[in-house]
Amino acid sequence: MNAGTIYGLGLGPGDPDLMTVRAQRLLQQARHVAFFRKAGRSGQARRIVEGLLPKDATEYPMEYPVTTEIPFSDPAYKRLLAGFYETCTARLHELAQKGEDVIVLCEGDPFFYGSFMHLYTRLVDQVPVQVVPAITGMSAAWTATGAPITWGDDVLTVLMGTLDEADLARHLAQTDAAVIMKIGRNIEKVRRALRESGRYEQAWLVEFASMPEQTIHRLSEAEGRVTPYFSIIIVHGQGRRP
Amino acid sequence: MNAGTIYGLGLGPGDPDLMTVRAQRLLQQARHVAFFRKAGRSGQARRIVEGLLPKDATEYPMEYPVTTEIPFSDPAYKRLLAGFYETCTARLHELAQKGEDVIVLCEGDPFFYGSFMHLYTRLVDQVPVQVVPAITGMSAAWTATGAPITWGDDVLTVLMGTLDEADLARHLAQTDAAVIMKIGRNIEKVRRALRESGRYEQAWLVEFASMPEQTIHRLSEAEGRVTPYFSIIIVHGQGRRP
Repeated sequence: MNAGTIYGLGLGPGDPDLMTVRAQRLLQQARHVAFFRKAGRSGQARRIVEGLLPKDATEYPMEYPVTTEIPFSDPAYKRLLAGFYETCTARLHELAQKGEDVIVLCEGDPFFYGSFMHLYTRLVDQVPVQVVPAITGMSAAWTATGAPITWGDDVLTVLMGTLDEADLARHLAQTDAAVIMKIGRNIEKVRRALRESGRYEQAWLVEFASMPEQTIHRLSEAEGRVTPYFSIIIVHGQGRRP
Repeated sequence: MNAGTIYGLGLGPGDPDLMTVRAQRLLQQARHVAFFRKAGRSGQARRIVEGLLPKDATEYPMEYPVTTEIPFSDPAYKRLLAGFYETCTARLHELAQKGEDVIVLCEGDPFFYGSFMHLYTRLVDQVPVQVVPAITGMSAAWTATGAPITWGDDVLTVLMGTLDEADLARHLAQTDAAVIMKIGRNIEKVRRALRESGRYEQAWLVEFASMPEQTIHRLSEAEGRVTPYFSIIIVHGQGRRP
């Protein structure tokens, strides 16, 4: 018997209309659907496909044992996550070995800061794995601002809000355009880094890009705002434009 | 009479299966379809939608008066391009004023180093304009390499091969992951910059990502290769991975 294929299926930024034709077709044929979620939550990836899965598809929620309760630098974090990914991998591997195709729902683009890659690297030498790319959340965010992110030969730097303030400020000072992701409780540090690098007044804050709850603010006009982890900050490039 | 809408329609990296559901629906309903192309060529954007447009759609090729024959820095380049974009804008504006919707086909994502933005900035205060985001060529390129581009809090820097060698090397030395676009005749300069920054052995070259002609090479194993302008070089991040 041939092994089934495990699909890392990029769903894009959240609007189902921004899914690819390939993603939509794979979802319509799905028999086994796995997805990550925070314990006690429905899961953002699962929410995106609401109403799109066949009635008889079997669902496999994979609940993170920890998200932001323990710092990344704590060895316990690494140990817990590694064990979790091993358990998930074993389950998917077992299904594939039985000849079943499995779809793993991925927010955004699977190979761009995704969680699927932790399963991918453990599975790719064992069973067939296919990755379906998708629109990134940052792409939806810069589209929402109504202005191009990069022109001509602008340099674009993508930064995580989890970086140190000094690293953030240094990278921001040297780039034309910037995207900062993973905001949430990092927002005050990110604001300071933007001020230090002289980019604060150019920065935009996009929450829930492409989703019904989408909001767009100039960062300087949204002081004190509590913003979700998956918010995105955009600094547009101003490059060559004939 | 209400003005029509001009759509900057992102088509993604080239595989029609990687278009969005929204893009496909808009194409199926299209009456007026504009697209850029080099004089004497069919145009990459137009090729992507081959077989997808209604038979009675009217097509408006917009032929660049110049591409790489004159350097960007030459005032003649700027003047020629500005005049060209004005002419294109006038034509689209006229259609929209007559109440017609117009689709402008855009390779990749319209707001990410696209040509559409030159029309967008001239039209957005005149008539309704909507931008439909899409998968970037770089996303298809890193997916093709079979390895994630970024992990954890990796910094990703996107660079154009048109930059100076010293600028390229400096940015490459300071980032975890990199994407270099607009390669073509810049490739030897890009190779030198990658060597200077110690990233040459980690670099991959992807041509025609997601298209039937797709090729993937380690850059160090493709020396002397003549590669198209729209090739993409990928340096993967190696960040946090539990």
